Amino acid sequence: MAKDKGITPQSQDFNEWYNEVIQKAELVDYGPARGTMVIRPYGFALWEGIQRALDEMFKATGHTNAYFPLLIPMSFFQKEAEHVEGFAPELAVVTHAGGEELEEPLAIRPTSETIIGHMWAKWIRTYRDLPQLLNQWGNVVRWELRTKPFLRTSEFLWQEGHTAHATAEEAEAEVRQMLGIYARMSREWAAVPVWEGVKTESEKFAGAVYTTTIEAMMRDGKALQSGTSHYLGQNFARAFDIQFQDKDQANKHVHTTSWGLSTRMVGAVIMTHGDDKGLILPPKLAPVQVVIVPIYKSETRPQVMPAAEGLAAELKAAGLRVALDDRDQYSPGFKFNEWELKGVPLRLELGPRDVEAGTAVLASRLGGKETVSLREVVASLPGRLEQFQRDLYQRALEFREAHTWEVDSYDLFKEKVEQGFVKAFHCGDKDCEREIKAETTATTRCIPYDEPQAHGNCIRCSRPSAYGKRILFAKAY
Amino acid sequence: MAKDKGITPQSQDFNEWYNEVIQKAELVDYGPARGTMVIRPYGFALWEGIQRALDEMFKATGHTNAYFPLLIPMSFFQKEAEHVEGFAPELAVVTHAGGEELEEPLAIRPTSETIIGHMWAKWIRTYRDLPQLLNQWGNVVRWELRTKPFLRTSEFLWQEGHTAHATAEEAEAEVRQMLGIYARMSREWAAVPVWEGVKTESEKFAGAVYTTTIEAMMRDGKALQSGTSHYLGQNFARAFDIQFQDKDQANKHVHTTSWGLSTRMVGAVIMTHGDDKGLILPPKLAPVQVVIVPIYKSETRPQVMPAAEGLAAELKAAGLRVALDDRDQYSPGFKFNEWELKGVPLRLELGPRDVEAGTAVLASRLGGKETVSLREVVASLPGRLEQFQRDLYQRALEFREAHTWEVDSYDLFKEKVEQGFVKAFHCGDKDCEREIKAETTATTRCIPYDEPQAHGNCIRCSRPSAYGKRILFAKAY
Repeated sequence: MAKDKGITPQSQDFNEWYNEVIQKAELVDYGPARGTMVIRPYGFALWEGIQRALDEMFKATGHTNAYFPLLIPMSFFQKEAEHVEGFAPELAVVTHAGGEELEEPLAIRPTSETIIGHMWAKWIRTYRDLPQLLNQWGNVVRWELRTKPFLRTSEFLWQEGHTAHATAEEAEAEVRQMLGIYARMSREWAAVPVWEGVKTESEKFAGAVYTTTIEAMMRDGKALQSGTSHYLGQNFARAFDIQFQDKDQANKHVHTTSWGLSTRMVGAVIMTHGDDKGLILPPKLAPVQVVIVPIYKSETRPQVMPAAEGLAAELKAAGLRVALDDRDQYSPGFKFNEWELKGVPLRLELGPRDVEAGTAVLASRLGGKETVSLREVVASLPGRLEQFQRDLYQRALEFREAHTWEVDSYDLFKEKVEQGFVKAFHCGDKDCEREIKAETTATTRCIPYDEPQAHGNCIRCSRPSAYGKRILFAKAY
Repeated sequence: MAKDKGITPQSQDFNEWYNEVIQKAELVDYGPARGTMVIRPYGFALWEGIQRALDEMFKATGHTNAYFPLLIPMSFFQKEAEHVEGFAPELAVVTHAGGEELEEPLAIRPTSETIIGHMWAKWIRTYRDLPQLLNQWGNVVRWELRTKPFLRTSEFLWQEGHTAHATAEEAEAEVRQMLGIYARMSREWAAVPVWEGVKTESEKFAGAVYTTTIEAMMRDGKALQSGTSHYLGQNFARAFDIQFQDKDQANKHVHTTSWGLSTRMVGAVIMTHGDDKGLILPPKLAPVQVVIVPIYKSETRPQVMPAAEGLAAELKAAGLRVALDDRDQYSPGFKFNEWELKGVPLRLELGPRDVEAGTAVLASRLGGKETVSLREVVASLPGRLEQFQRDLYQRALEFREAHTWEVDSYDLFKEKVEQGFVKAFHCGDKDCEREIKAETTATTRCIPYDEPQAHGNCIRCSRPSAYGKRILFAKAY
């Protein structure tokens, strides 16, 4: 059994490491239909943590949850030209229901702009009905060819926010506000550093005027787009005829936004923090923050177990998420490995001598062991978990900085983009972008907001840069 | 606009009353695909309240959330004979995805016993892997012919719990425990009295050994099945070959349960409490518990609004869900009607004289107005809301008791079942049950746990009763 938990080192095969760790840590399993996943309780608890953090921030900024139907008439997708081009190839289509063929086939939503647009056209009459600030927690289906649990699956869970505003200014401020909430959740809860920026034209959402994104770096140096917030302008308002009578009595089309963050974020947590022993989870999201492993033989069990149970009760009462591993059939060593694989931040080992001395051994998943007094450990653990959260973020930030290069020659670009992120100038031409992708498999990740203004020549074709700053390139999931 | 909010009286046409109130109170709207609904923010907030109450009780009893795929291979449904018979006619089927015809069509889950059974067969090895205590929040699709928002829709939201146990005893205890949680949520949060009991054979879940249910009475005297908990025995364990090695080394099939409660519960809240003015919401679930309506003319506005805003801030700080209706374009009378339609439990009216006197007028949605001191209203409101919650439950209970009859003649049965619930003896014969349904449209609702033991003759055919007690009949949604 212990052997089963051994995993391929990241350095040997990162992809294989990922596939093993997600299964052995019981985060996820493969569903029977192609490209689908089963999110197991340990993985789902991570998603619930992300949900709680986001839902609270959404509500604090005036959004309310609603629910729109899963099934959308196929004709809806035809109404916005770019949208249909982007999504039609990935649709899963219901043609039969209730034993009969449907008159019009229904698509399973790949995203809900169309059906929400359809309803808004009915609900919105005047400026008093604006803004509409809606969010939906749910599932979507996109029939992808290459799938990987959490990162790209035929069905995934996400939230999709949809808002409608009277003016472009207000809508654009919303786009940026929601991207900021994604960045905050990522940094403060998931301990995942991200770049915030705007997508280039070729990488934007199908139907958007522009797309903003948070981009994270995985431990193989590749990028993971972890959340996006789109300014849709009046594209969907025109397609679905969503008009309002403004204060000046004129009828105008609304300006809409949409923004989504999915179970992909669980993948970001796994691949940003994990190491050769398995997961390392940020305390704010960890389903188990502290595991107590009692160490006993049959004769010392009656002494150790009550102390361990008392400690677990105290920690729970202090609001911590605690597991007590009281399984008699496994050795402490086996248990250490398993909880390390599962990424639990802190471990308390409690043996008969510890019980006598009023101590325990505290081991951190980031390394290091120390003997702590049982008397003060309850009081000190919340602070230690906060420190762990900060350390984990710092570790990820340092990794990212060590794997990001400013580059001005295409040869160096090709070399460095194999190892991490590259900041370079680009001409802004779609064909040039496509060539870079064809030659290196790297894509533009974003035009970062925080990047200082600068001018230079395109990394590939030497034409003048188009964005007034370096932009971010990487190979991406 | 005020006229728009007028609704058909319940006594005139209960069905029409329902259709109007759910739309005018902005709980729900009709989706574009047949039989689908859009749950609007005000309606969704009710569902979120139900979710919070249940999720907490599920976790307190050791269950964890997980997520299984929406799409299930059609062949899975063939494996359990009764299950396929019950659900095949209602399946929505995906035949095309990603631009191609699928090799095997995929059903959108109508319920997840099959796919969870498939995964359990892989996960469960020994008694140490038991019990499995899973819950899933999600959507399901059942292609129903006659639909009605919240009560019966092509797609609905629900939770479905699925558990696997080593013994029948343990599984049966689980079935009853979860029914108890449903009853508790219904009574304590929704203020909806329910009967708990067992379904007759003809009314049980397709694939169950037996089904337990909570049954509520709507204000037109009809029954609403509001949550069910099923003992599945080893039916699905055999169909999906879910075996475990027990402590005695023997391989055995697990015993499984499933239990579900859906957005239908929102319908129960609407139809148990509503009156001719609209909704009446239980404070524990109400999205808005207290609404403040400031009463002013343009010259008194500067005096009234700051006081109203201060009061709203105080009430929010006290943890209440408060709305301040500061819309200048509507009269107080219009606002009163609208918030009554929306079922807000308590209303505070604040005019210039009130501000001077340090008072407000407190109106209850259950009737009655009184002048209260602003100084003490913040402290007294939580208690008043609790009292409102109790009164609402009591009102529903009294209504139910006034519309429930013990009946021993078939003529009286036919008369009374038009007005409410009937307790009568029944022979237990399926054909006899079918005849009653054909003649009266009433069905058996359950064999209530709390009904005292008694013997008598079948209400219709006079054969001896089969259940050792009276059972419950009603017309049902």
